[in-house]
Amino acid sequence: NDSSIEKKDSVGIVNGLAWTEVGGETLSVEVNIMDGTGKLELTGNLGDVMKESAKAGYSFIRSNSYKFGIKSDFYKNYDLHIHIPEGAIPKDGPSAGITMATAMISALTGKPVKHDVAMTGEITLRGKVLPIGGLKEKTLAALRIGIKKVIIPFENKADYEELPDIVKNNIEFIFAKNMVDVLENALTKPFKPSLPVKKSGNNLLPLDNELYIKNDISNVTIAKL
Amino acid sequence: NDSSIEKKDSVGIVNGLAWTEVGGETLSVEVNIMDGTGKLELTGNLGDVMKESAKAGYSFIRSNSYKFGIKSDFYKNYDLHIHIPEGAIPKDGPSAGITMATAMISALTGKPVKHDVAMTGEITLRGKVLPIGGLKEKTLAALRIGIKKVIIPFENKADYEELPDIVKNNIEFIFAKNMVDVLENALTKPFKPSLPVKKSGNNLLPLDNELYIKNDISNVTIAKL
Amino acid sequence: NDSSIEKKDSVGIVNGLAWTEVGGETLSVEVNIMDGTGKLELTGNLGDVMKESAKAGYSFIRSNSYKFGIKSDFYKNYDLHIHIPEGAIPKDGPSAGITMATAMISALTGKPVKHDVAMTGEITLRGKVLPIGGLKEKTLAALRIGIKKVIIPFENKADYEELPDIVKNNIEFIFAKNMVDVLENALTKPFKPSLPVKKSGNNLLPLDNELYIKNDISNVTIAKL
Amino acid sequence: NDSSIEKKDSVGIVNGLAWTEVGGETLSVEVNIMDGTGKLELTGNLGDVMKESAKAGYSFIRSNSYKFGIKSDFYKNYDLHIHIPEGAIPKDGPSAGITMATAMISALTGKPVKHDVAMTGEITLRGKVLPIGGLKEKTLAALRIGIKKVIIPFENKADYEELPDIVKNNIEFIFAKNMVDVLENALTKPFKPSLPVKKSGNNLLPLDNELYIKNDISNVTIAKL
Amino acid sequence: NDSSIEKKDSVGIVNGLAWTEVGGETLSVEVNIMDGTGKLELTGNLGDVMKESAKAGYSFIRSNSYKFGIKSDFYKNYDLHIHIPEGAIPKDGPSAGITMATAMISALTGKPVKHDVAMTGEITLRGKVLPIGGLKEKTLAALRIGIKKVIIPFENKADYEELPDIVKNNIEFIFAKNMVDVLENALTKPFKPSLPVKKSGNNLLPLDNELYIKNDISNVTIAKL
Amino acid sequence: NDSSIEKKDSVGIVNGLAWTEVGGETLSVEVNIMDGTGKLELTGNLGDVMKESAKAGYSFIRSNSYKFGIKSDFYKNYDLHIHIPEGAIPKDGPSAGITMATAMISALTGKPVKHDVAMTGEITLRGKVLPIGGLKEKTLAALRIGIKKVIIPFENKADYEELPDIVKNNIEFIFAKNMVDVLENALTKPFKPSLPVKKSGNNLLPLDNELYIKNDISNVTIAKL
Ligand SMILES: [Ca+2]
Ligand SMILES: [Ca+2]
Ligand SMILES: [Ca+2]
Ligand SMILES: [Ca+2]
Ligand SMILES: [Ca+2]
Ligand SMILES: [Ca+2]
Ligand SMILES: [Ca+2]
Ligand SMILES: [Ca+2]
Ligand SMILES: [Ca+2]
Ligand SMILES: [Ca+2]
Ligand SMILES: [Ca+2]
Ligand SMILES: [Ca+2]
Repeated sequence: NDSSIEKKDSVGIVNGLAWTEVGGETLSVEVNIMDGTGKLELTGNLGDVMKESAKAGYSFIRSNSYKFGIKSDFYKNYDLHIHIPEGAIPKDGPSAGITMATAMISALTGKPVKHDVAMTGEITLRGKVLPIGGLKEKTLAALRIGIKKVIIPFENKADYEELPDIVKNNIEFIFAKNMVDVLENALTKPFKPSLPVKKSGNNLLPLDNELYIKNDISNVTIAKL
Repeated sequence: NDSSIEKKDSVGIVNGLAWTEVGGETLSVEVNIMDGTGKLELTGNLGDVMKESAKAGYSFIRSNSYKFGIKSDFYKNYDLHIHIPEGAIPKDGPSAGITMATAMISALTGKPVKHDVAMTGEITLRGKVLPIGGLKEKTLAALRIGIKKVIIPFENKADYEELPDIVKNNIEFIFAKNMVDVLENALTKPFKPSLPVKKSGNNLLPLDNELYIKNDISNVTIAKL
Repeated sequence: NDSSIEKKDSVGIVNGLAWTEVGGETLSVEVNIMDGTGKLELTGNLGDVMKESAKAGYSFIRSNSYKFGIKSDFYKNYDLHIHIPEGAIPKDGPSAGITMATAMISALTGKPVKHDVAMTGEITLRGKVLPIGGLKEKTLAALRIGIKKVIIPFENKADYEELPDIVKNNIEFIFAKNMVDVLENALTKPFKPSLPVKKSGNNLLPLDNELYIKNDISNVTIAKL
Repeated sequence: NDSSIEKKDSVGIVNGLAWTEVGGETLSVEVNIMDGTGKLELTGNLGDVMKESAKAGYSFIRSNSYKFGIKSDFYKNYDLHIHIPEGAIPKDGPSAGITMATAMISALTGKPVKHDVAMTGEITLRGKVLPIGGLKEKTLAALRIGIKKVIIPFENKADYEELPDIVKNNIEFIFAKNMVDVLENALTKPFKPSLPVKKSGNNLLPLDNELYIKNDISNVTIAKL
Repeated sequence: NDSSIEKKDSVGIVNGLAWTEVGGETLSVEVNIMDGTGKLELTGNLGDVMKESAKAGYSFIRSNSYKFGIKSDFYKNYDLHIHIPEGAIPKDGPSAGITMATAMISALTGKPVKHDVAMTGEITLRGKVLPIGGLKEKTLAALRIGIKKVIIPFENKADYEELPDIVKNNIEFIFAKNMVDVLENALTKPFKPSLPVKKSGNNLLPLDNELYIKNDISNVTIAKL
Repeated sequence: NDSSIEKKDSVGIVNGLAWTEVGGETLSVEVNIMDGTGKLELTGNLGDVMKESAKAGYSFIRSNSYKFGIKSDFYKNYDLHIHIPEGAIPKDGPSAGITMATAMISALTGKPVKHDVAMTGEITLRGKVLPIGGLKEKTLAALRIGIKKVIIPFENKADYEELPDIVKNNIEFIFAKNMVDVLENALTKPFKPSLPVKKSGNNLLPLDNELYIKNDISNVTIAKL
């Protein structure tokens, strides 16, 4: 069922790969952003683990918004709605984590996502990409709907080696260690932060929103984005 | 049981088609709008998937209110109540998505909906219409209560070909790809936006309600409505 | 068990007819209104469908308050408590819809309800009266406690024809299509709206509480009440 | 188990009679009032029906506070806690309704309740007393702990006739139709309202707290209390 | 398992006695007080009855704070956290009521609790101590961990008589009728209220926090504490 | 599965040891801190006992923030998100208590945690470390992923003696009685409080945030941190 494949690059819409009772499956993650009060709406027949995965990605973005040029107070002045269509199909598990995070970042920055890219991977609070299962079934589904590039966790490299030739010959694979790897390959334009970045000082608890900016700035290369 | 068919075009009331344990069924979606604080009330013995479908339509409208001439802050100054009568009958599934969205838009704009039109289709956050099941049973039910035109998802065209002649000869079919197709065929009057539409600038995160206006304005033809 | 029958016309108390596991049953719907913040309390061992039915009636009243002479901001400055005594008996289903709506309107306007009238019927968001089941058992119960007039849905007319003679000979029947029919027969005094009614203009989204006033004013005859 | 019987008249503590799996049982309803924000706390292993019964009594008091000399805004400036000790024993049913209402009124007015009086009866939103079951077992339990007077619903008079002689000879019975009957027999002092009572005017929706004062003032004799 | 026994008198930590599936058990109730907004946090794998017991004790303290020298608005400017360690073990029942109340009072007043005292007893809203079960198993557990004094409900005196000699010879027993008895034996220092106590006047509903001070001041001897 | 092991010392990330259905397991606790309103988000497929354990640690930190140089109002101006990756695996039990508390303190103070240290232990509200089960399986898992030092509860010393030689020879063990022991061994830098510490006076209830500072300051040696 190919109904959810976009014909062109869109803002806030990302192709995901899922593994359901009926085998490998593609899904389309949609994110809309609206004036609001900071509500995070999650719909599309999502299980608890998938909802928690969305929240992990949301906190990752809140903690790193300045790196993406997103205003740090977005979480309280806008509502985000993450929806995964085909509401009749129950969906669960952590493997749509990077897909939902990418859709949120695209919607918040206005940068389109390549329509022929799909991805699968669990996300951590710090943006690491963790391995997933069912890679063969997922990539076969991606092949069927014309996906050209698939982003998978770096730690699934061994599973990649076992993929059928028809998949490896027709799809380009990206092995992602973290969300920077994912975004570089999924977005149509590179980031150029438009907001000044404050470095952490020596004080233990800085005022305002300096706290989370300081948190792990030591191991971030802003220019890389 | 034909009890819920309106005799004339009404604001905020739309005929839907459902597929229940007892076969094809018509239902009537009612929307009332009241001064309030932005509450979305959903009643009528609706399952979780149907409630999520209503929320997807609600966010679609919030994200695109300027296209319909709806004040962008409606979501916080009015309460919306979506009710589907015949409370004794449990209802679920995503296929009333476009029906509920049409009823909300009708109520918010004051434009009546044609009383002899019925519809069925899942809605996405961006207003795409996704395919549904049970088309034969649904359209037979529509025929019984005197529906003249049925709006179905474009991707159900193959199911349409298999419909019995009595249905195809007595009902006009519309194949909808998105909510614009739906509204053009269901509302009694075309839209003429009364509010100025702001185009997105170059800034990453515009102030006020520019954010969601900007989101996918690239692929919207305002004049079309 | 006749314990809940009032001896005289009261404000906010209406006789309903229910159909339970032990057969036809009368019940008494009580509504109290209190200074408050807009809370709707529902008690008396009510199932979810019955609670949703109360909410549909509540929204019907909010959307049409000006027609009944009720201040449009009642929903935020008063708490309403709907209670159905005999808490040991579980109650459910949509057929107390018009009973609860009548009790609320009586309490909000101060107009008493005739103590020898009973009623049964589902209510829609627009005040339509939908058919119900178990008419024979319900009306036999009404007869036992001395009810003189019973209001039933217009669409139950066929069921009425099948009622036993003892019921038809001793009870006057009213066939109601909508809440106007119900109120004309249940309240002791006609309505005379005390608040100015604003007609809708040409603007799409009027300010303040004009929105819902405008909604379906076209098919309302104010003078009729 | 007699542990919860008070030795002298107390404010906010009332003896109730319950019927549990192990037969007739006495229980002690405690009410504390505290500065607060209008919270109603219900503890003591109470089932849903018993909790709803407490809420019905609470709304009865809110709607009639002026008759008892209780400031009409008590419901938003004080927290009420209703607790029924012996938390290990599950309690349910509507028959503690008048007991909880009496304890609340005692606590709010500072008037003690007679320590040798017990009571059982369902309460309605308007203060009517509805019949209950298990009268024999309940009154035998009352006898065991030294209760001198028991207040029961007027409609349980037939059950009273069947009580064993030992109960009828040792306990005085009061047959209550409404809460006025209950309070006259349970409280140690009569009421003298300290607040001016406003009569309802002709306007449909009075300002401020006149609304509920007006509600059924027609059938209340203030001087009776 | 003796892991939770303190070596010296602490503020806000009290030894309790419980009766679980594996027999008599000691537990340690911890209370922390923090700047906050009046939240009562309850953790440690506690069942509903135990949580309600904590709330009864909390309301007892709110209603009597002036007797303990606790500022009457503590309930809205501080958060209380009651935790019972060994989270892997489910705990329930009302018998930790006086233990949790003592820990709260200790934490709120800064008075330490004797580390070699343990206690068990249900608490009522008015501070009465109600009897409990499993006294033999509980006191044997107390003996094992070196408890020198155990406070039990006065109404468990008959159970005390049946205790084995080894328990009666090595542990001092206190028979408590109410929380005053408990606190006199558990705290290391007597109370000297530091806040002026207002006596109740003749007015029915006093302003501010006089309401609950008035409630049962008649049977309290302040000097006794 | 070694996927969650960090290669260098990080702020807010701590290695924990768990015991699941499939044996000993390492897990990585992540904490992000964000501008917010005091929400504590807990994700990663955590059971109720584990969530309560996180709350106990959170209250421990709130009650002792001044000792760690954390601004005392952090709990209302920042949101904390605790996430434990590998969302597909259900996690429960109290033994990650000290791990989550250490991760929170690291994130709030900006002090990194040693990447080759792992820990297991229940935490109390006062920062005591309670014993846990499954030590052998947990430490074998730690060995597999290259952990050099493991912090365990002091009361698990007997279990330590029974560990296989390969574990004892390759891992350094720390026996912790309280969170001070844990932090001294897990953090890369010692604490130097940057905020003035107020000593408690003689008044029973000090103003502002003096209350919890006073609580158990008697047995804390600030200079020790
Ligand atoms: Ca699909
Ligand atoms: Ca996994
Ligand atoms: Ca129908
Ligand atoms: Ca479908
Ligand atoms: Ca009845
Ligand atoms: Ca029906
Ligand atoms: Ca008892
Ligand atoms: Ca009954
Ligand atoms: Ca223990
Ligand atoms: Ca007991
Ligand atoms: Ca692992
Ligand atoms: Ca344990």
